[in-house]
Amino acid sequence: MCELLAMSANVPTDICFSFAGLMQRGGNTGPHKDGWGITFYEGKGCRTFKDPKPSFDSEIAKLVTNYPIKSVAVVCHIRQANAGPVSLENTHPFTRELWGRNFTYAHNGQLANHKQILKTHKLLSIGITDSEQAFVWILEQLRIKFGDNRPGSEALYNYLASLCELIDALGVFNLILSDGEFIFAYCSNNLHWITRRAPFGPAKLIDTDVAIDFKKETTEHDVVTVIATQPLTADETWSKLHAGDWLAFEYGEIAYQGNRLG
Amino acid sequence: MCELLAMSANVPTDICFSFAGLMQRGGNTGPHKDGWGITFYEGKGCRTFKDPKPSFDSEIAKLVTNYPIKSVAVVCHIRQANAGPVSLENTHPFTRELWGRNFTYAHNGQLANHKQILKTHKLLSIGITDSEQAFVWILEQLRIKFGDNRPGSEALYNYLASLCELIDALGVFNLILSDGEFIFAYCSNNLHWITRRAPFGPAKLIDTDVAIDFKKETTEHDVVTVIATQPLTADETWSKLHAGDWLAFEYGEIAYQGNRLG
Repeated sequence: MCELLAMSANVPTDICFSFAGLMQRGGNTGPHKDGWGITFYEGKGCRTFKDPKPSFDSEIAKLVTNYPIKSVAVVCHIRQANAGPVSLENTHPFTRELWGRNFTYAHNGQLANHKQILKTHKLLSIGITDSEQAFVWILEQLRIKFGDNRPGSEALYNYLASLCELIDALGVFNLILSDGEFIFAYCSNNLHWITRRAPFGPAKLIDTDVAIDFKKETTEHDVVTVIATQPLTADETWSKLHAGDWLAFEYGEIAYQGNRLG
Repeated sequence: MCELLAMSANVPTDICFSFAGLMQRGGNTGPHKDGWGITFYEGKGCRTFKDPKPSFDSEIAKLVTNYPIKSVAVVCHIRQANAGPVSLENTHPFTRELWGRNFTYAHNGQLANHKQILKTHKLLSIGITDSEQAFVWILEQLRIKFGDNRPGSEALYNYLASLCELIDALGVFNLILSDGEFIFAYCSNNLHWITRRAPFGPAKLIDTDVAIDFKKETTEHDVVTVIATQPLTADETWSKLHAGDWLAFEYGEIAYQGNRLG
């Protein structure tokens, strides 16, 4: 399996603290040693750092930990390979253009029969993971459903949720998807989140001996949501998503939410 | 204007030496201070490091200079903005999927009337540069011409050259394009290249006080071609491309070449 991490914020915020914790799970405190990647949005642009090597001793991960890149939307993934060998083309996150924007995707889980059921015609996978195939299938379905123009957000999220339900039926599908404005999260069986806002307090990572006082790093107007497979801090209360729950965050706040049961 | 750099090699090779020279032109020995990017292929996968900040004092450029990433195909660009503000979405190289592969593109030059003449319908630009629009136009034309399957290499390169001629007529179009196997270079007015092979010798960068003895870094079977806007070394003989020349390198060697005059 893998672990997911994402951030949605109302002001450009760095993710160094959370990233420092997650990276330890890539071969040190966790078994997810088969590569990692992180995508930072800045406006409509984004940049991805990725490495097929274990994150906990990656030179590139060290840079990302120590060099604060400020963003309102971040998608991150550490991999424990099940479908597809360890290689750069199989390393998440994946980014593709749709409607003139970068869509970025990371998946935790495993899907059966994805080759038959998630077949695509216009967009092709580059690697050989079930994850990437589900991503290009989602984008192709969005294009078929909505055509050349992005629909309104509510219609988009509801349709995304319905696609997630279909994919979830093939196995386990915990998803993070972003276009740089929203972070869409779908929970198959394992996803947590926390929103930090004033009054800010201290927090301590579970996976490494690092603590932070968010009061010193923020202003009173900041709203920062972090989504992760497992909570990253020991002394805060994270919310757990349940099977079929989905949340769409925009600039740190929940914009829409739902569950496959309605 | 901007500067281009690319590498094609028959064995995975790092580009630290050439990159160290080029990065100085991003705000130190050259005026190209409006961002930079570099894409390394590893198999069908690729990863891009990019930064809208000047390269010569970029933390990320320092990492790329000191951390050898070995690749058989590399595309690099430093930007001096003319069309489009300095931002991540306007920073080259650009990468998009076609035929199940990553295509990566960087451009040096300026194009007039690109919005009218290089209009696309399926693939949209994310930033607002003439360069990115020319890229998505090329990909859309390739798709229209050859459909769902990659043609043979000779047909592909010849058609690419004909598209370059059309774009070149709009201004200045020095191009690097790669799918990870080939490096295709089209010269509008400014492009040089060198192939290094046994017997290897020493070389010294023009832009910074760094020398290398390639003999110590290579085996006798290595073939490494470097393409750059301007020569990067002082003590080697670089070949100059002429207006309308194009070269397609595969694994370090020229596979096909031509000129718009036939």
